[in-house]
Amino acid sequence: MSADETLDQSVPDEVHEELMAATYRALCAHGYADLTMQRIADEAGKSKSLLHYHYGTKQQLLVAFLGYLFDRFEARVAATEGDAPETRLRVLLDKMVPGADDDHDYDRFGLALNELRTQAPYVEAYREQIARNEAVIRRRLADIIREGVERGQFREVDADRTASLLFAALDGARLQRVAVTDPSGTETTSQSAFDAPTEVRAALDEFVVESLVREEGDE
Amino acid sequence: MSADETLDQSVPDEVHEELMAATYRALCAHGYADLTMQRIADEAGKSKSLLHYHYGTKQQLLVAFLGYLFDRFEARVAATEGDAPETRLRVLLDKMVPGADDDHDYDRFGLALNELRTQAPYVEAYREQIARNEAVIRRRLADIIREGVERGQFREVDADRTASLLFAALDGARLQRVAVTDPSGTETTSQSAFDAPTEVRAALDEFVVESLVREEGDE
Repeated sequence: MSADETLDQSVPDEVHEELMAATYRALCAHGYADLTMQRIADEAGKSKSLLHYHYGTKQQLLVAFLGYLFDRFEARVAATEGDAPETRLRVLLDKMVPGADDDHDYDRFGLALNELRTQAPYVEAYREQIARNEAVIRRRLADIIREGVERGQFREVDADRTASLLFAALDGARLQRVAVTDPSGTETTSQSAFDAPTEVRAALDEFVVESLVREEGDE
Repeated sequence: MSADETLDQSVPDEVHEELMAATYRALCAHGYADLTMQRIADEAGKSKSLLHYHYGTKQQLLVAFLGYLFDRFEARVAATEGDAPETRLRVLLDKMVPGADDDHDYDRFGLALNELRTQAPYVEAYREQIARNEAVIRRRLADIIREGVERGQFREVDADRTASLLFAALDGARLQRVAVTDPSGTETTSQSAFDAPTEVRAALDEFVVESLVREEGDE
């Protein structure tokens, strides 16, 4: 191992996957504020010292976890390659709203992620990784829109601007929902906030996705 | 004063305005985590005991502050009454993005508000007031859209859903920007996140506002 490799690169792939999945479950269960290395170790059924050995501090482990989210997003995008741009866009947007089988992870994880992002202005390592993750989400959405324009399947639009709208709208809807919903995701103080993700998803179809393909002749 | 009046109703209007403006400045300067009654008192040039006398605990004062934001939003909506729905919509959306003269308050206050919202799932009084504020923002935007539809100036749309999109998109863009920007609002780790509010505002014009008025004959 060369000296400039980061700690988590020394972790065997399957152990990394296991520990990152345990971090995800621990964040859902305890939130960011109450997350400890012990709780992650408990979720993984491993020792706390193993976590420290592979990742260093809790903060370093969380940066590795943000990198893991990044890898998962990239894998999700890659899985849509070869599909039509409209299909790819719809599939990726659908991943940003609560699924039928999601068992409150959307709410619990959304809350934990928002807590972590609230720390980001003060913690450079979080900020760097979050900035990288989110810039790539925008870029991948924009690439798909550009692909649609180039193929003549979408009308000419500013792809980067359109991608920013898609991402911000679904991100904002989740923020609004998790702020007024019980952390378990079972009780809400505001129905309009709770419904925001699905409502915004539907509005994006109507105002953006259908507008992109509109020129093909339907209207 | 009747027994069921809340503490802040006993504050003379001009003192309330002064103390709430001081709370706003203190939140911008110190953020939510480092906000103390002393810092708010210092901003106001008043004693800490006066703050406690009028508002009770820091948490109660912050609930009163959220109510003050609510009143300000309602006043802003009222100021657009009589204007055309399209104008009203554009004016209110413009208030949700950084202005030319805003001197980083958009960033500093956005960050503090996000910190406060991160607490909301755990603090019922915050949650209730935030839910109320945000439900009213959606409702007022929806009312304006409905007015436009009724007057025949907007095409027929689901007004509530459209309002949810407008609000979530600009709210999400701010969240994304403040998470990766230095709390002073002067340095950013991600240009695409920093630009998100203005980019999203432009995209909303293109995809939503112009689409609402499109049926009038331009396209």
